[in-house]
Amino acid sequence: MSAAPPSDTFTVRDMGSFHIGGEIVSLAGMPQRHRISTPGGPVRPIEQNGEMAVGQMYVQYVRLAAPRSPVPVLMWHGGGMTGANWEGTPDGRPGWQTIFLRAGLDVFVSDAVERGRAGFAPSPEIYPEAPFFRTAEEAWTEVFRFGPHGSYHKDPALRRAYPGCRFPLKDFDAFMKSCVPRWSCNDERTQTAYDALVARMDHCVLLMHSQGGSFGFHAALHAPEKVKAVMALEPSGAPDPTVEDAGRLAGVPHLFIWGDHLGGSEFWVQYRPNVERWADALAKAGVPVEWIDLPARGITGNSHALMMDDNSDEIARMALDWLSGHGL
Amino acid sequence: MSAAPPSDTFTVRDMGSFHIGGEIVSLAGMPQRHRISTPGGPVRPIEQNGEMAVGQMYVQYVRLAAPRSPVPVLMWHGGGMTGANWEGTPDGRPGWQTIFLRAGLDVFVSDAVERGRAGFAPSPEIYPEAPFFRTAEEAWTEVFRFGPHGSYHKDPALRRAYPGCRFPLKDFDAFMKSCVPRWSCNDERTQTAYDALVARMDHCVLLMHSQGGSFGFHAALHAPEKVKAVMALEPSGAPDPTVEDAGRLAGVPHLFIWGDHLGGSEFWVQYRPNVERWADALAKAGVPVEWIDLPARGITGNSHALMMDDNSDEIARMALDWLSGHGL
Repeated sequence: MSAAPPSDTFTVRDMGSFHIGGEIVSLAGMPQRHRISTPGGPVRPIEQNGEMAVGQMYVQYVRLAAPRSPVPVLMWHGGGMTGANWEGTPDGRPGWQTIFLRAGLDVFVSDAVERGRAGFAPSPEIYPEAPFFRTAEEAWTEVFRFGPHGSYHKDPALRRAYPGCRFPLKDFDAFMKSCVPRWSCNDERTQTAYDALVARMDHCVLLMHSQGGSFGFHAALHAPEKVKAVMALEPSGAPDPTVEDAGRLAGVPHLFIWGDHLGGSEFWVQYRPNVERWADALAKAGVPVEWIDLPARGITGNSHALMMDDNSDEIARMALDWLSGHGL
Repeated sequence: MSAAPPSDTFTVRDMGSFHIGGEIVSLAGMPQRHRISTPGGPVRPIEQNGEMAVGQMYVQYVRLAAPRSPVPVLMWHGGGMTGANWEGTPDGRPGWQTIFLRAGLDVFVSDAVERGRAGFAPSPEIYPEAPFFRTAEEAWTEVFRFGPHGSYHKDPALRRAYPGCRFPLKDFDAFMKSCVPRWSCNDERTQTAYDALVARMDHCVLLMHSQGGSFGFHAALHAPEKVKAVMALEPSGAPDPTVEDAGRLAGVPHLFIWGDHLGGSEFWVQYRPNVERWADALAKAGVPVEWIDLPARGITGNSHALMMDDNSDEIARMALDWLSGHGL
């Protein structure tokens, strides 16, 4: 069974968005402040004490008039990113949201707790720490692996990338503009919100990138009857098989896809073994596992941004064909 | 000339998103910190010094296979909000994004600088102040006018709304979850990014809500050859006619729509006169101005959230018919 050929246009039944998870909390003891709400307006006092929403997640959906499958794909972004990463590439090519819609699948793109349209909560009152901001150097070398250590430079002409790097490097600044601040204190809130999203669905396929991986693997463990398949692009974490029972996922196929140059990044050297251990446990438990190491298949030069690299459509096609092979 | 009747489905040529405006800045002197990037991963040092992107805006577009007009509508949200406000209502009805797409118009929804998927910058290094958070009380009374002063209560059963309030109050918590933090120091960055968006378009119609109003009026002044029409839902500010020449907008029709109970909110009592003054200046300069005061037309009970109230589709139809009347 092969995936349906993509068509350029697609017909939408409805699209929209909602927030899920979170709670209303009361704040007291916040200082009285003032602001001008709109240019030319008067200075007004602002009361920061009272009730506000925290811990929610944002979800945007596009449902097709005639999907090929009744099971939608939930796309979960990585750390310091938002769902915008699924909507397009820095150089303006179609994102995986569009590619999957064109292939006939309903798509739900989310912004995790604290990211993008999910909003964030006061610090230190709710989040005990300050946010982290992504530097261009960290993105270029450690996390996204466009080039080796020391290869980033302020001057684009002096930046060095891995030979054959498939990321659209001329639009690196556009990529940096899509990064958003993050905290490291919200894993539990985030998992809770993702679990609430899965609980709301009849069925779903999970597609995660990077930091989204661990949340997706756990969400599948928490609702194996809802999750029909799990696809992870370079997940940065995974459940501990000495704690979690991989056998609960016996009917839930898992796909892993990896790019190039992981050995040159201390981050990935440290993080990938946890994922390998989970994939091994899944396989031993009888879960259908496909582990795609792109360089081992002769596809070299992919960065951590697999859905933005110059062969992002080819990788999407691998994922779509794998889904088709599992009847999805 | 009447707007085309809406159909339930619509066929999309392409959709995607991009960031526009902003710059890459260098930060130094930030403290060394540590974090765990993903559950189960090791503690890693995080370098917060270096280059990062600030001042950009997020724009998401949906382009139809066969739009009724070549001129897309740019939807600009209000203060403490994101573009999600155009995607749906708190009780799950179609948002204006969908209504306008069904009516045959291409739609570009943005998150302004510092909001949602635009991301935000370090404070106090880039933004000199801390963010503001919206309280439920402020939303219920002063800004969105669901009820009079003192009518908000933690217990939903004890909240009092204006009689006939058209906002879907049973989903007030869902609405609160769509609010995001804001700053009051970024008007110039925001205007610059909006102007860059308009400059990128061939032509466009601007649709603004609340705080978005002032940015839209100024964007039209800055590029009257690009902007074919301006539609403002309860704008909270406007240019000063003693500073700006309304005559520059002679060929650019303006629509203003206002809900109910403005007199009960000190915020609106203070802010609306600036807008009236600008509308008067536009009219005197020969700009086609339509000023729709819904209660004066017998439509009572609308809140500040005109695109979410229970007659949001009727108000959208007014806007679409007005656009049709101007050949758009």
